[in-house]
Amino acid sequence: MQLGLIGLGKMGGNMRDRIRAAGHEVIGYDPRPEVTDVDSLEALAAALTPPRTVWVMVPSGEITRNTIKALAEVLEPGDLVIDGGNSRYTDDGPHAALLGERGIHFVDCGVSGGVWGKENGYGLMAGGAPEDIERAMPIFDALRPEGPREEGFAHAGPVGAGHFAKMVHNGVEYGLMQAYAEGYELLQAAELVENVPAVLRAWSRGTVVRSWLLDLLVRALAEDPELAKLEAYVEDSGEGRWTIEEAITHAVPLPVISAALFARFASRQESSPAMRAVAALRHQFGGHAVRFAAGPSGAPGQTAGPSGPTP
Amino acid sequence: MQLGLIGLGKMGGNMRDRIRAAGHEVIGYDPRPEVTDVDSLEALAAALTPPRTVWVMVPSGEITRNTIKALAEVLEPGDLVIDGGNSRYTDDGPHAALLGERGIHFVDCGVSGGVWGKENGYGLMAGGAPEDIERAMPIFDALRPEGPREEGFAHAGPVGAGHFAKMVHNGVEYGLMQAYAEGYELLQAAELVENVPAVLRAWSRGTVVRSWLLDLLVRALAEDPELAKLEAYVEDSGEGRWTIEEAITHAVPLPVISAALFARFASRQESSPAMRAVAALRHQFGGHAVRFAAGPSGAPGQTAGPSGPTP
Amino acid sequence: MQLGLIGLGKMGGNMRDRIRAAGHEVIGYDPRPEVTDVDSLEALAAALTPPRTVWVMVPSGEITRNTIKALAEVLEPGDLVIDGGNSRYTDDGPHAALLGERGIHFVDCGVSGGVWGKENGYGLMAGGAPEDIERAMPIFDALRPEGPREEGFAHAGPVGAGHFAKMVHNGVEYGLMQAYAEGYELLQAAELVENVPAVLRAWSRGTVVRSWLLDLLVRALAEDPELAKLEAYVEDSGEGRWTIEEAITHAVPLPVISAALFARFASRQESSPAMRAVAALRHQFGGHAVRFAAGPSGAPGQTAGPSGPTP
Amino acid sequence: MQLGLIGLGKMGGNMRDRIRAAGHEVIGYDPRPEVTDVDSLEALAAALTPPRTVWVMVPSGEITRNTIKALAEVLEPGDLVIDGGNSRYTDDGPHAALLGERGIHFVDCGVSGGVWGKENGYGLMAGGAPEDIERAMPIFDALRPEGPREEGFAHAGPVGAGHFAKMVHNGVEYGLMQAYAEGYELLQAAELVENVPAVLRAWSRGTVVRSWLLDLLVRALAEDPELAKLEAYVEDSGEGRWTIEEAITHAVPLPVISAALFARFASRQESSPAMRAVAALRHQFGGHAVRFAAGPSGAPGQTAGPSGPTP
Repeated sequence: MQLGLIGLGKMGGNMRDRIRAAGHEVIGYDPRPEVTDVDSLEALAAALTPPRTVWVMVPSGEITRNTIKALAEVLEPGDLVIDGGNSRYTDDGPHAALLGERGIHFVDCGVSGGVWGKENGYGLMAGGAPEDIERAMPIFDALRPEGPREEGFAHAGPVGAGHFAKMVHNGVEYGLMQAYAEGYELLQAAELVENVPAVLRAWSRGTVVRSWLLDLLVRALAEDPELAKLEAYVEDSGEGRWTIEEAITHAVPLPVISAALFARFASRQESSPAMRAVAALRHQFGGHAVRFAAGPSGAPGQTAGPSGPTP
Repeated sequence: MQLGLIGLGKMGGNMRDRIRAAGHEVIGYDPRPEVTDVDSLEALAAALTPPRTVWVMVPSGEITRNTIKALAEVLEPGDLVIDGGNSRYTDDGPHAALLGERGIHFVDCGVSGGVWGKENGYGLMAGGAPEDIERAMPIFDALRPEGPREEGFAHAGPVGAGHFAKMVHNGVEYGLMQAYAEGYELLQAAELVENVPAVLRAWSRGTVVRSWLLDLLVRALAEDPELAKLEAYVEDSGEGRWTIEEAITHAVPLPVISAALFARFASRQESSPAMRAVAALRHQFGGHAVRFAAGPSGAPGQTAGPSGPTP
Repeated sequence: MQLGLIGLGKMGGNMRDRIRAAGHEVIGYDPRPEVTDVDSLEALAAALTPPRTVWVMVPSGEITRNTIKALAEVLEPGDLVIDGGNSRYTDDGPHAALLGERGIHFVDCGVSGGVWGKENGYGLMAGGAPEDIERAMPIFDALRPEGPREEGFAHAGPVGAGHFAKMVHNGVEYGLMQAYAEGYELLQAAELVENVPAVLRAWSRGTVVRSWLLDLLVRALAEDPELAKLEAYVEDSGEGRWTIEEAITHAVPLPVISAALFARFASRQESSPAMRAVAALRHQFGGHAVRFAAGPSGAPGQTAGPSGPTP
Repeated sequence: MQLGLIGLGKMGGNMRDRIRAAGHEVIGYDPRPEVTDVDSLEALAAALTPPRTVWVMVPSGEITRNTIKALAEVLEPGDLVIDGGNSRYTDDGPHAALLGERGIHFVDCGVSGGVWGKENGYGLMAGGAPEDIERAMPIFDALRPEGPREEGFAHAGPVGAGHFAKMVHNGVEYGLMQAYAEGYELLQAAELVENVPAVLRAWSRGTVVRSWLLDLLVRALAEDPELAKLEAYVEDSGEGRWTIEEAITHAVPLPVISAALFARFASRQESSPAMRAVAALRHQFGGHAVRFAAGPSGAPGQTAGPSGPTP
C-alpha cells in the first residue's frame, strides 16, 4: 500500500527502509532537504492517493501536536493519521478529536525496538477503531518482526491504548535494566567472580534471566569490560515518569519501577541535597564522621569526628 | 564420560536424561528405589571407575552437607565432586576443605533453567580449579544449551564463584519478575487496554522487554487470562535473601532487588503489623477513616471517621 | 480582630474555639444549622465589617473551588480570603486570580495538627503577599502553638507556597509513619523483645527517634497492645500522591516517601495482581510451591509442588 | 551506688559526669592516662567493693569482646557486667555465657542520645535477668532523662533484647532521617518556597512531623542555610545493616528502612557501576544521550546522541 511518513530521523528513516523492503510505497517528509522525499506537508498530501494513510514519527509533545494540527489542514475526510511517536497517551484523545472534526481518522501506535528494529522488526501496540487498525495492517505487518502477528503486534484497545501500553512497556524496561545493573554491580563488588562479563554472557542461553536486554549488556561489556568509558549518568525520557504518575492515579504499587526511576534521578545529581541533610543530622549528633566540602583552594574535603557509638 | 549423579528429583532426573542423551554414562543414586540406579552411595562409588566424577543435585543446606560428608567417606583421592544444587556460596569453601582433606577435588556449579532445561539446556556457572573444570567439561557441554559454549557456561572463578554467580542470577530474576508483574498490574488497573494478555504477547518479539520470563508470563496468561486461579502469595527460596545480605556486606545499593524481595514477604502476610501501626497512627490523629477488625461474629470490619483535612 | 470562618467540621469547629479563646471575634458559617452562626455566605459577608477576612476550611477540590467562587460574589474589593484546607497548591493560583479579578486578596495556609491542634496549637505555613500575611497575623498567632512565632508559623513564599509546604510536610509524615511501623513490626516479629509497647514507650525521652508521632504510637499501643482492633488497611489522602508527582516533575528521588505511599496502596488490595503474576511465573518454572485460589466451595486454597532447586 | 565504667570517650566520659552528678561513685578506666581514674582493669576491680557492677562503653566487636574476656579474668562470681555499647545483639549470648562460666552476671543495654545525652539524659533499653536489671536500676535512673522511668527506660527482655531494641531504634532512625531529607530536597528543588529553613523551623511546634531530629535539622540549617559546607556523603554504622539482615531472617518487609540504607551506600560511590551499566544499555539502544567519561586530559566528558523516541 501507499504510506506518507513524517519524520525521517533515526527511527523514521529506518522504518521507511523496512516498509519499502516489504514492498510498500513510502513517501517521506522531513524538514531536512537531504532526507525528505517531498518539500512540504502539502506536497505530501498531494503525492498520496486518497484515502491517505500518514504515519507521524516525530518527537512527542509540541512537535507532534503541531504536526497533527498541520495535518488537519492538509488532509481530507476519510484519511488516516497514525501517531507512532512516544506521545503521552493523554495526548491521543485531543489529537483524535481535532482530526475527527475534519473527518480524519486517528490511530496511536507505540513502537519498540530502537535502531535494531530496522533489521529485527519493531514491537507494535496500537489503539483505535478496529476498521482503522485493519486498514493500516499491511504497514503494521511490514514493521513488526517476522513470526506470528500476535507476537509482535497488538490492537490494545481504543484510541490511547497503544501509547498507554508503550508507556507501561517502557516503565517495565526501567525495572529490568536496573535489575541487571544491580546484579552486575554486586558481581563486581564481591570480587569472588573473576570474570563478570563471562558470567553475564553465560546467562545468555538456558537461564531464567535470558533476554534481549541481557544480550545488549553482554555486547556492551564485550566492548568495554569495566564500563569505564561511560559516566554513571542516566537520563530518563518521560515514559518512566508517566508510568509512576499513572500508578499513583490508579493506586497501583510500583516499588521496583519507581526505584529504577529514582536511581536515574540520583545518578544525575552532583551533590544530593537530601544526603547533605542526612550528613548534617549526623554532624549534629556529635561525634560522627562527616565530610566537609572542599574549600576554594580545591583541597579535598576533610573528615571530622571519630566514629563512636551511634546515638 | 562416566558420571555419578546423586539426587534424581525433578532437576536431577531431567539432567540424567539430558546427559545420557548426549552419549555419556550416568549412574544415578536416589533414596527412592523406583528411580535409583544403585542402592547406596557405596554402590555408586563401586560402580564408577576411578578417578570418579560425582554430581550432587540435592536440596541445599543440611542434605547437601550430609551428602558431601558421606562422599568424603566413600570416594578416593583424585575423585571430583560437583555440587550443582542451590547451596549458599559460603558453604562451598568448607565442603571443598572437607573433601580436600581426603584428596578429593570440588567444583560448585550454579544451574539455571528449571524443568525447561531438559529440553533447552541449562545455564551453568562453575567455580573451582581450572583443571577440575576442564575435567568435567564434557558434562557441562551436555547440560548447557546448544550454541557457543560461553553463552551457556562460565568458569566464574575459584570455589564458591559458581554459586555466588547463581545467587546473583536469582536476585536479578526477582527484580525482573517484579518489573513485569508491576507492568501487568498497571495495564489491568487502568482499564484502557482491553486485552492485557494480547499486549504482553505482542511484547514477545521486537520490543526491548522481550525475554524468556515474558514468554512464561504470556503462557500463564494464555492458560488463565485473569490469573484468577492463583493466590497473590509468593514464596522465596533463599537466593534473594542471600543477595541482599551480600549487598549489605559490600555496601552495594540494591533498591530494585530488595523491593522485589520485600513484595514477596508482604504477599504472605495475613495482616501486616506495620500497616496496622500506620492505621493506628491515623486513628490517633482523629477524624481519619480506618477499618476496625471484624468482631467474633465474623461481621465485616467497620469504618470509622469521615475523612477531613489531613493533619 | 474579626474573622469569618467557613466550614465548622472537626477542624473548623476546633479552630473557631481556639481563635475565640484568644480574644477574637469569629463568625462561622456551615451548611449544618446546628453549628453555624449565620444562615448563608451572604449573611456572613453582611455580618463582617469591611475590609473582611474570611478563612475557608472545607474539603479540598470541588467544595473549596465552589466556596471560592461563591465568595467572589459576596465579598468586596479589599477583602481577604484565606484557604486553610488541604488544597493542592496548583489550585491556589487560579483561586487567587479569580478573587483578584474582584480586587479580593488571597492567602493559602497549610494547617497541621489535627484534632490535637485545638489544645496544642496548629503548625501553619502560609503563602501570599507580605501585606496580606501581615493582616492575618493575629489569627495566625491565635492558631499557632505558644512559643516563638517562627517555630509554629512560616510565611513560606508567594501564593501556593503554603500549600506546597504542607504537601511536603504530609509526604514526610508518610515516611516517618512507615519508618516507625516497620520498626514496630520487626520488634514484634523477632520475639526477642518481650514487651514491644514498653520499648517504644522508652523511646519517648532521650532517644534520637523521639517525636510526636512516636507519642501517638505509644498511646495507640497503650489502648490496644497488639493493635488487634484495626485492620492493616491504610488510606491516603492526596498529599502523599502529590508529593511524588512533584518529585517526578523536579527529578527529585524520593525512595522513602514513595515506598511509604506504595505500602498504603498495597495494604488496600484484596489480592495483588502483581503478586499473582509473580506466582504465575513461579508456577510456570515448574516445581515451585504456589497457592491456588479457593474453589467455589470456599475450601482453602491448595499448595502445589515441592520446593526443589530454584531455576 | 558504686560503678566501674570502662571506656571514657565522648559517650563514656559524658556518662561518668551524669552518673556522678546523680550522686553515685564512678571509677572510670580508659587506656588514655589523661582521662582514666585507675591504671588497669585489675586496679578497677580492686577499687570496687564486691559485688561489683561494671559498665562497658567501648566500640562494639573486637574491642568489646576483648574487654569482656578480660573482665571474666579480673571479676568475681556475683559481679555484674553491663555492655552499654552498640554491640550486635548476637554477641550478647556468647558474652553472657563466657561471664556466666565464672558466675558473673550480664546485662546488655542500648543507649541512645549521643552527645546530647549528658544534659538531656539517655534513652535506655536493657536486656537481662530481672534481678540484674533491678540491681543496676540506680544507674539506669541516673542516666535516663527526667520524667517517668518508663518513658526513658525499658527492660526489653532477656539477654540480647536491649541491643536488639537499640538496633531497631537505629534502623527506624535511618528511615526518619531520610524522610526529612527527602522533604528538604523537594522543598529546595521546587523553588516555590522562598525560605526552606523557615518552613522546617515552622514545623517545630504543632505539626504532625515535629520531633527531635527535626529540631536538629533546624539547627543545622540555622548554621548553614544551604547545607553547603557538607558533602553528600553519609556513612552508616552497622545497626542499619543489621536491621535489614534481621528483617530478612524474619521475612519482614522494610521498604523504607532499606531505602534509607541504600541511599547512604549510593551517597558514597564515586561512580555507580550499576548506573554505568544502565547507561551502557541505553547507549546500546542507539540514539540515546549518554555521557562519556573524561579522558586523561581531564576534559569534561562528552555527550553523545540526540534524544529520539525511546525504544
